[in-house]
Amino acid sequence: MKYEDAGVNINRKANALKAASEHIRATYTPEVLWGLGAFGGLFDVKKLKDYAHPVLVASTDGVGTKTLLAAKTGRWEGIGFDIVNHSINDILVQGARPLFFLDYVASSRLEPEVLGAVLDSLAAACQAAGIPLLGGETAEMPGVYHKGGLDLVGTIVGVVERDRIVDGRRTQSGDVILALPSSGLHTNGYSLARKAFETWNLSEPLDELGGKTLADALLEPHRSYLEPVTRLLEAGLPVHAMAHITGGGVEGNLPRVLPEGLGAVIEKGTWPVPPIFPLIQRAGHVSEAEMYRVFNMGLGFLVVLPEAHAEEARQALGEAYPVGRIVEGEGVAFR
Amino acid sequence: MKYEDAGVNINRKANALKAASEHIRATYTPEVLWGLGAFGGLFDVKKLKDYAHPVLVASTDGVGTKTLLAAKTGRWEGIGFDIVNHSINDILVQGARPLFFLDYVASSRLEPEVLGAVLDSLAAACQAAGIPLLGGETAEMPGVYHKGGLDLVGTIVGVVERDRIVDGRRTQSGDVILALPSSGLHTNGYSLARKAFETWNLSEPLDELGGKTLADALLEPHRSYLEPVTRLLEAGLPVHAMAHITGGGVEGNLPRVLPEGLGAVIEKGTWPVPPIFPLIQRAGHVSEAEMYRVFNMGLGFLVVLPEAHAEEARQALGEAYPVGRIVEGEGVAFR
Repeated sequence: MKYEDAGVNINRKANALKAASEHIRATYTPEVLWGLGAFGGLFDVKKLKDYAHPVLVASTDGVGTKTLLAAKTGRWEGIGFDIVNHSINDILVQGARPLFFLDYVASSRLEPEVLGAVLDSLAAACQAAGIPLLGGETAEMPGVYHKGGLDLVGTIVGVVERDRIVDGRRTQSGDVILALPSSGLHTNGYSLARKAFETWNLSEPLDELGGKTLADALLEPHRSYLEPVTRLLEAGLPVHAMAHITGGGVEGNLPRVLPEGLGAVIEKGTWPVPPIFPLIQRAGHVSEAEMYRVFNMGLGFLVVLPEAHAEEARQALGEAYPVGRIVEGEGVAFR
Repeated sequence: MKYEDAGVNINRKANALKAASEHIRATYTPEVLWGLGAFGGLFDVKKLKDYAHPVLVASTDGVGTKTLLAAKTGRWEGIGFDIVNHSINDILVQGARPLFFLDYVASSRLEPEVLGAVLDSLAAACQAAGIPLLGGETAEMPGVYHKGGLDLVGTIVGVVERDRIVDGRRTQSGDVILALPSSGLHTNGYSLARKAFETWNLSEPLDELGGKTLADALLEPHRSYLEPVTRLLEAGLPVHAMAHITGGGVEGNLPRVLPEGLGAVIEKGTWPVPPIFPLIQRAGHVSEAEMYRVFNMGLGFLVVLPEAHAEEARQALGEAYPVGRIVEGEGVAFR
């Protein structure tokens, strides 16, 4: 991992990085042969020999404008969980378990305290998931980024046995859709949410949020579904498809894993909608249809499987709600 | 690969992406099981079973403010080669061959023509290197990026046999340093270069540049050293260390791969310095020491090995210059 930059405030940054580097090293599993300081991070994959037919699954994503809220409130402690868990969930959709993570942090100028807090959060999130923060890069580009604007990008690499890839192909009409609850907005819809609350006080406790502040609710970290979904996959149940509900909501994500000719019906009222969503709808005068197009609305991760196995699956998953069914047709209908 | 966004100009973007997606698909090797549309890109690594002890090497990097020059001149055709080749060289340092690449493109607003040109360039660079563009993401964040400001981030994953990792540990005093020439600035030092030429005409042919324009010279794509270095490694020569000369110049990069107690002496005048460097120095009134700290000065990639093998190594590498030696001490001295 090499943290280079365009040449500004190198010394203060070096100190912040020194502190964070210990937290990064704490994420190293025995597979990490060389991390900090290396041109490329080295990760031993001899264990892949235990796989009959290993397939790597990789995904790159950005955390989006949730960084603007973190900057506004000075609260960066969840941002690493946001991008790490988002990435873990993205490859989990295909049945992969994560191997390692890499980050990229860029801004007009990286204030050492902010950079240190972001790296600490990334390290904590990787450690919670049991994967190393294998590499990363920082950049300071005042000509590209607004003053105080920061982007956080992550890349995850995982592995799945080829004959255990969950690819949606076996999905059938009548299959049940189980939903794992989201912890809030996760990492999507922040442009709309920020606009809705433009004139609101972010730090005042609100009754609608059970006494939490808007900042608390909006900055709630993206949840990882690694543990419950791993239990499900290890139970050997016939999982037909899975979807991580990110930008575009259920209708933008579930159809990506359904075979042609199949759609879904979701029954409203069958899962808990976190109170932040009706609050955004009211504050921003957003139509319900738009809400479902932009946000996860509490449906964080969907699992599709035959009805005969739905009850077993619920038990393996822990908290999960049967929210709908696969039907012939296309698209997603809420009713 | 999922190209989602914050909800602006989706349709024009969809069209640009449709055209680029064919070029992206053209990069797919037989190992790619699922690319465009997938939550995570799937890459078959059954072939890793042929390795006695495979080690993955991964690196994330950004292309820096070269994007500002590309935007200013409207020339995006080289930018994909910049980030792809930069990434390839970073893992080549440890002896790894690339397996696949992922990209992230973000801006205040992604004009479809610009996004299409960037993705086309990424696809062309991946195809030239024989690796798939396995995944990627785009983001539009007007609150984070300046109008017209664009960041391009890449992640590469490669593989090396564990007992063939080049880690610098065997480097000895007296070893020869061979330099592979750079094609220009590569992806570093653009803040300084843009400042130096702030008032210059970028599109006027200059005698000092052999009739090329400043735009030509500054936008010259980052060179890949994959082919010559692969020939070198396959020749079985005892390569002790390699370094990719990026931000920080030789003194910021070569010591990263040298054991403690060893430094280097580089003899000026032993390799061709591309004419853009003396021009930057003159235009920006930059000291020579500063030039060597910021730029590669023509030294794109360094190979360190025992003198007894230097001539064989030069033949395997093609164009390469003996530019100095490893010495006892620390740091890098130019003389």
